[in-house]
Amino acid sequence: MKKLRELTIDETFELFLLIKNADVRIAKNGKKFIAFTFQDTSGTIDGKYWDASEEEISRFSAGNVILLNGKREVYQGNPQVKIIHMRLAKPEEPNQPTLYMERAPLKREDMIEEMNQTIFEITNAHWQRIVRHILTKYQKEFFDYPAAKRNHHAFANGLAYHTISMLRLGKAICKEYEELNAPLLYAGIILHDLGKVKELSGAMSTEYTLAGNLIGHLVLAEEEISKACSALKIDEAEEDVIILKHMVLAHHGLLEYGSPVRPRIMEAEILHQIDNMDASIQMMLSSIRQTEPGQYTDRIFGLENRSFYVPKDC
Amino acid sequence: MKKLRELTIDETFELFLLIKNADVRIAKNGKKFIAFTFQDTSGTIDGKYWDASEEEISRFSAGNVILLNGKREVYQGNPQVKIIHMRLAKPEEPNQPTLYMERAPLKREDMIEEMNQTIFEITNAHWQRIVRHILTKYQKEFFDYPAAKRNHHAFANGLAYHTISMLRLGKAICKEYEELNAPLLYAGIILHDLGKVKELSGAMSTEYTLAGNLIGHLVLAEEEISKACSALKIDEAEEDVIILKHMVLAHHGLLEYGSPVRPRIMEAEILHQIDNMDASIQMMLSSIRQTEPGQYTDRIFGLENRSFYVPKDC
Amino acid sequence: MKKLRELTIDETFELFLLIKNADVRIAKNGKKFIAFTFQDTSGTIDGKYWDASEEEISRFSAGNVILLNGKREVYQGNPQVKIIHMRLAKPEEPNQPTLYMERAPLKREDMIEEMNQTIFEITNAHWQRIVRHILTKYQKEFFDYPAAKRNHHAFANGLAYHTISMLRLGKAICKEYEELNAPLLYAGIILHDLGKVKELSGAMSTEYTLAGNLIGHLVLAEEEISKACSALKIDEAEEDVIILKHMVLAHHGLLEYGSPVRPRIMEAEILHQIDNMDASIQMMLSSIRQTEPGQYTDRIFGLENRSFYVPKDC
Amino acid sequence: MKKLRELTIDETFELFLLIKNADVRIAKNGKKFIAFTFQDTSGTIDGKYWDASEEEISRFSAGNVILLNGKREVYQGNPQVKIIHMRLAKPEEPNQPTLYMERAPLKREDMIEEMNQTIFEITNAHWQRIVRHILTKYQKEFFDYPAAKRNHHAFANGLAYHTISMLRLGKAICKEYEELNAPLLYAGIILHDLGKVKELSGAMSTEYTLAGNLIGHLVLAEEEISKACSALKIDEAEEDVIILKHMVLAHHGLLEYGSPVRPRIMEAEILHQIDNMDASIQMMLSSIRQTEPGQYTDRIFGLENRSFYVPKDC
Amino acid sequence: MKKLRELTIDETFELFLLIKNADVRIAKNGKKFIAFTFQDTSGTIDGKYWDASEEEISRFSAGNVILLNGKREVYQGNPQVKIIHMRLAKPEEPNQPTLYMERAPLKREDMIEEMNQTIFEITNAHWQRIVRHILTKYQKEFFDYPAAKRNHHAFANGLAYHTISMLRLGKAICKEYEELNAPLLYAGIILHDLGKVKELSGAMSTEYTLAGNLIGHLVLAEEEISKACSALKIDEAEEDVIILKHMVLAHHGLLEYGSPVRPRIMEAEILHQIDNMDASIQMMLSSIRQTEPGQYTDRIFGLENRSFYVPKDC
Amino acid sequence: MKKLRELTIDETFELFLLIKNADVRIAKNGKKFIAFTFQDTSGTIDGKYWDASEEEISRFSAGNVILLNGKREVYQGNPQVKIIHMRLAKPEEPNQPTLYMERAPLKREDMIEEMNQTIFEITNAHWQRIVRHILTKYQKEFFDYPAAKRNHHAFANGLAYHTISMLRLGKAICKEYEELNAPLLYAGIILHDLGKVKELSGAMSTEYTLAGNLIGHLVLAEEEISKACSALKIDEAEEDVIILKHMVLAHHGLLEYGSPVRPRIMEAEILHQIDNMDASIQMMLSSIRQTEPGQYTDRIFGLENRSFYVPKDC
Repeated sequence: MKKLRELTIDETFELFLLIKNADVRIAKNGKKFIAFTFQDTSGTIDGKYWDASEEEISRFSAGNVILLNGKREVYQGNPQVKIIHMRLAKPEEPNQPTLYMERAPLKREDMIEEMNQTIFEITNAHWQRIVRHILTKYQKEFFDYPAAKRNHHAFANGLAYHTISMLRLGKAICKEYEELNAPLLYAGIILHDLGKVKELSGAMSTEYTLAGNLIGHLVLAEEEISKACSALKIDEAEEDVIILKHMVLAHHGLLEYGSPVRPRIMEAEILHQIDNMDASIQMMLSSIRQTEPGQYTDRIFGLENRSFYVPKDC
Repeated sequence: MKKLRELTIDETFELFLLIKNADVRIAKNGKKFIAFTFQDTSGTIDGKYWDASEEEISRFSAGNVILLNGKREVYQGNPQVKIIHMRLAKPEEPNQPTLYMERAPLKREDMIEEMNQTIFEITNAHWQRIVRHILTKYQKEFFDYPAAKRNHHAFANGLAYHTISMLRLGKAICKEYEELNAPLLYAGIILHDLGKVKELSGAMSTEYTLAGNLIGHLVLAEEEISKACSALKIDEAEEDVIILKHMVLAHHGLLEYGSPVRPRIMEAEILHQIDNMDASIQMMLSSIRQTEPGQYTDRIFGLENRSFYVPKDC
Repeated sequence: MKKLRELTIDETFELFLLIKNADVRIAKNGKKFIAFTFQDTSGTIDGKYWDASEEEISRFSAGNVILLNGKREVYQGNPQVKIIHMRLAKPEEPNQPTLYMERAPLKREDMIEEMNQTIFEITNAHWQRIVRHILTKYQKEFFDYPAAKRNHHAFANGLAYHTISMLRLGKAICKEYEELNAPLLYAGIILHDLGKVKELSGAMSTEYTLAGNLIGHLVLAEEEISKACSALKIDEAEEDVIILKHMVLAHHGLLEYGSPVRPRIMEAEILHQIDNMDASIQMMLSSIRQTEPGQYTDRIFGLENRSFYVPKDC
Repeated sequence: MKKLRELTIDETFELFLLIKNADVRIAKNGKKFIAFTFQDTSGTIDGKYWDASEEEISRFSAGNVILLNGKREVYQGNPQVKIIHMRLAKPEEPNQPTLYMERAPLKREDMIEEMNQTIFEITNAHWQRIVRHILTKYQKEFFDYPAAKRNHHAFANGLAYHTISMLRLGKAICKEYEELNAPLLYAGIILHDLGKVKELSGAMSTEYTLAGNLIGHLVLAEEEISKACSALKIDEAEEDVIILKHMVLAHHGLLEYGSPVRPRIMEAEILHQIDNMDASIQMMLSSIRQTEPGQYTDRIFGLENRSFYVPKDC
Repeated sequence: MKKLRELTIDETFELFLLIKNADVRIAKNGKKFIAFTFQDTSGTIDGKYWDASEEEISRFSAGNVILLNGKREVYQGNPQVKIIHMRLAKPEEPNQPTLYMERAPLKREDMIEEMNQTIFEITNAHWQRIVRHILTKYQKEFFDYPAAKRNHHAFANGLAYHTISMLRLGKAICKEYEELNAPLLYAGIILHDLGKVKELSGAMSTEYTLAGNLIGHLVLAEEEISKACSALKIDEAEEDVIILKHMVLAHHGLLEYGSPVRPRIMEAEILHQIDNMDASIQMMLSSIRQTEPGQYTDRIFGLENRSFYVPKDC
Repeated sequence: MKKLRELTIDETFELFLLIKNADVRIAKNGKKFIAFTFQDTSGTIDGKYWDASEEEISRFSAGNVILLNGKREVYQGNPQVKIIHMRLAKPEEPNQPTLYMERAPLKREDMIEEMNQTIFEITNAHWQRIVRHILTKYQKEFFDYPAAKRNHHAFANGLAYHTISMLRLGKAICKEYEELNAPLLYAGIILHDLGKVKELSGAMSTEYTLAGNLIGHLVLAEEEISKACSALKIDEAEEDVIILKHMVLAHHGLLEYGSPVRPRIMEAEILHQIDNMDASIQMMLSSIRQTEPGQYTDRIFGLENRSFYVPKDC
């Protein structure tokens, strides 16, 4: 079966898709219509369903999988689907929403395994116990959640995948600069975005929670270190605990980006730069993959609205 | 007995003073001298002690009270004392360092009383219990500490005094705008700077602690709310707890000033403005008190280096 | 009779409303239509009148009161009215436009009375005479005008209401900080925005005048002090006159906000902060009043596009 | 007689000089000394007078002309004079302070003449009458004052010289772009900095006045237009008067530079750019004149601390 | 024959016009339409061509001249043409696209002549030879190209016209300030924007080239100086060559505007200011010419989105 | 023989040192003295030589190696040497200046070897030939020069060492993200700072050249690519050449940091981040090495004046 991204203009198709959004609006003729966003693992497309009855509105709500018979068109420069017919997927059909969500390119088990191996390299006992305690507490969310609502790694398992990528970078860097405190850097990487399991509402229809908006994932993660110390009877006044909290709080690098303190430990500065590098590469790669060689990508919000050129001959 | 500020140029005096700083340096002739800063409740003055012996260096260290016989001079535009003779204060003389430190104009007991009265007005049970728990835990430090190392309220009891002044302002404002949530504003005011009892080293020779530099007083106070909830069995996921944490985290108003989140609750925005207003007024007043009418104050660092004119005829 | 804000979706209604705007445009079918904005004291709503004749276009112009029979709908997330029938209000019906404009919650007479009481507290003779002279000269405009074209206090009597609110705040602050020069602060508050009577075109269909755009209300008010001095034979070189002018010119606080000088007098700094506080509270309150508890307000332009959370359980 | 700038290192000299500053300080030995800045039309030099008696301190005060016998030395990279002997200039000697002040390269009479010629070209009657009225009122100050305390044109007659240079530039520009309103530009140029006659204290020992600090020269000049209208019975509500005021208020170009409004008239934008161009050229030229070819000038504060290279071979 | 700008609302017309853009889109009814922009020397207008066949789409492509029979209307405040009938211009009709493009008000030959005269005034042999070499190499492009894709001088010959205007300004300025190095300034002006012949794709349908986006016209012009030196056997290490390169590289004035170095030579600073002045005047004039006296222009992007008032009575 | 950094306070020593600076000044007693900065591979120290004769001044000039008998003291908090006796090093003694200069921790030959190996991995023929051509042309300077006058890698061989470190990082990153164009990244890394061989004056007493100040190392390197293409008959209009130039021009990342274009190619963005990371780590490490555990480093200018904490227990 084809994916959304593989359809050509004016192609007629029949595909199972997830309803990502379904907004009800009123047309000029006074009747209601539904403005849909459909999704599969390759991307999304919009389409309008005219003259919707109340029953249809409640049947075709967000989060359902449907079988869509449609035609791929272009409207004001953007892809759009003309809906010919649609029905809910049946129980015997592939109707689990998670089948249609974009996800990380690594398997969940492999990521868990790689993470566990790394924890052994955190030789400072406090840090190792704190990291292990928190990961155990939030294992499910940590390996399910995206790393963001939009921008970089905004897909299922994105949080763990981003963390794993950063750990790999971190290990390469520690090999080049031997004076770096590798256990500190690894512990910091693992915990830096963990607050997102409380900042975001989950893997599907991701939204910011109240705590996410009013406290933010940096402080939410820092609190977890504090709670872990309580549970593990580790004195929070110890230098290594203060430093680990600092790694998490300082990782946005600048106050303007929401860190309440700027990095004041060498490894905290490096953590910030690794985070920035992995996020930039992910954003650029995901735009470049959708761009023809010889063309420019769309403007990337997270990279100050720059568009990037994709070379064709080299 | 006169105060330091009351001395005129070239006046000879004999005063009990506290040694605030005592730096040992080497003169061009190769001999050691001590660069002193002396202090009483009216201010500070510098003076040099030439050809200091090792014994004198250890005897006249910072934190001791001495009886100084000297002459007030001016060196490159700044007041300076020429040291004629000095000796340690004797046990029967007024030799407690705290006698010479600047302090708040309100009495400690009065401030405690006023604070306790206010707590009754915090009618939300969670907030009242949390505030009471934390204040009880840190009562001594809260009523001893300055509000800063320098800038505004940098004197003993400054933290409590700043808090009381803000409460008074807050009450006046709540009277004008009845839709404000007064209990929330009062709870926020009381806790907003409480993290300073961990950020600063104490009332004398105040320095930033490691936790102060690497975590900061906003997050240190927020952690205390979290610990109080644990102790009091209050669920931290409750909306009112999240909001109280937000009050503390957002009170610097802008990310650039170290708040990890900007105010997103009306009372958090007001708390920030009240904090700013009380701090500005204190900084201006303390500069204006040292300036002749018809003159400009020194530039005030905390007010973007502005100097203020002190009117003479109106 | 119901107000616009009280209508529910799909409700049919018949209401007297003021035509706030009436833009004539051409539809795709080549015929003209009128894009209306209707208003009552509770807010505004848009609606389109299709196939308008030239006669209808001239009859239903802005500033007229009409009786509208319509249905309240939603179009792309915003409230909209479907016009069923409309006619001009008759002479015997409530057809004065001012009945439908939003206005301050205080009565005009009460505000005049409160302002007059305050003038007695301005004990410096120059300031009192200048304030009285200018208020007398512009009494009508001062108590009619809004404080802005949009943003805060953008309603009839808004200018006086904003001034009264600031005076109340100012009095509360002077009580806490006795070293403040209360007469100076009150005189500054009363005059600070008075230039708006020349910057804006009036209470209805408010626009910026040429002098408003090219000179601005700060300098326009400062000029009035100068003229008052001429009329009252007060020497403008006197310190207290210079300071009063400064209060007005510096009240935006920062050069970037249009003050040609930053506050260099303590009371000028406080005036700026009070202005800021009252404007912020008004903007937050007016957004919060339109928001359900548990939801976020719209983004508020004058507060750096922040949206605020409206607590539900506390 | 040589000028200060012409002296070589270690040269002994005898020169009439003006005492620009005379600060009394206390040396390490407890005796007083005077820190002098001496001046002639070529520049300034510092020198210290040790062991000064009270009589000498009062005799050698700022503003007096002296005959100095000294030696030109270098101290920490800066020129300095070793004072061998000094005495007050006698009545029959060249003892007028103005002889030693830097001044504009044009003669006062020539500038007056050129200004008067230009006024004829201001063909709008309101503008011509206003300009003539104000120039007559402040003729003496306008042709005496510097254009600034420091930075560009900080010398006697600097204000008129800066204005004349701008007028010449303005005329050349109007010839290239015929759509410009030349009378408006000329009137704006003549009045733009006129407020400096009230902002600054005078040509010698120039300081900012209270009105200069609290109101600023832009608004002070704008007030003068207002007063001129009163005196000449010109209605201030006329468009041409509003525009002339705008020229003056907007000439700093940006709010951050103290204009309460940004230029909104084409000629106001050009006035700002001409002002900037003449000021930049004067600052660069006066630094370049003191620099050897092949070297860099000192950093120029008014040009964002840049230093400029002075070519040697081209 | 009338020009586009001269048509009145609802006027029916028949005009030869150039198709500037022709975007194919899909209407709600599923059929294709063409969104045209038509152009003549007086400006542009948009119009939609409904139900377009494939043949029509390929016939009416951008760059063709057509004879259009239409009616000038207004749609949402903007001028629009209702297409009644259109056909391609015939060979015997005025069908060269260049006839319909906006162009500079000076004749090409006159500009070439004026440029050549100026080159004689560049008395430094290196500079004169380099300028002559480069102008000869790119003569055609230099006198054809616009100075920009949009913003100022975005019309045919705009690059040469902008350069000529700047030379005229530069000569006037050199006459006022004799210490300026006129040959350096002229050489800098001629070369400063020459890189645009490589940055832009040409005079019609102007786009940025890859080198334009990735290298930029400043460095592209600097490279040409380097190549000219190679061809002319001039040693690039000579001071005058380094300085000429600097003139080109620094002419945007600020790093934020894309200059890799800020002006460090007096003439480089002046070059930047002249560039700025000519560009501003062109932008203001071209907006003002389209605005009624007594009204404000549209917001001008290149002047920080300001709109300018066009006086009516003076 | 001890190194400068190993001396303790008040220790008397005899060491061969390089005279880095020797400034002649005049003391208060009118006699000349020399203000020296001495250097060995461990760092620098200042010392004054009083009552210097003309012969001594010319003998002890910068760049000479001397045998110094002195005592290490502290003056105003900074290390200082009291000079007891000094003489020039003799021919048979270690008198080559390069012996006393700080240098990279890698051997020159090893760096050349590693660089050559890398060139083989640049599989694009244009890039490989260009890189090889330029490295051959500037081999001596490239492996001698520092990477900066001060800040990071400001020591002999610093330029090559910085480049090698970045290549190692680059290889590690390419292993993690396989979609990166490794040959492009390596070619960009090798050339990015090569312009410093023209921007700086050399390895000793490093200063900025005129071309360095007026053109800058980014454009100087870009020119070299252009010249290499000429020499190698490579067409500069090829996409891969344009992209390689872009890598060099964009590597400062932001216009404010002197790049005339922001990175618009993925590998250019990564090059910028790698450059930043290696420079940051070098600056932090070199400060941390001079700091006791448990203390803060000095403020680091290149890292926005932050000081970093050096942990003691972890």
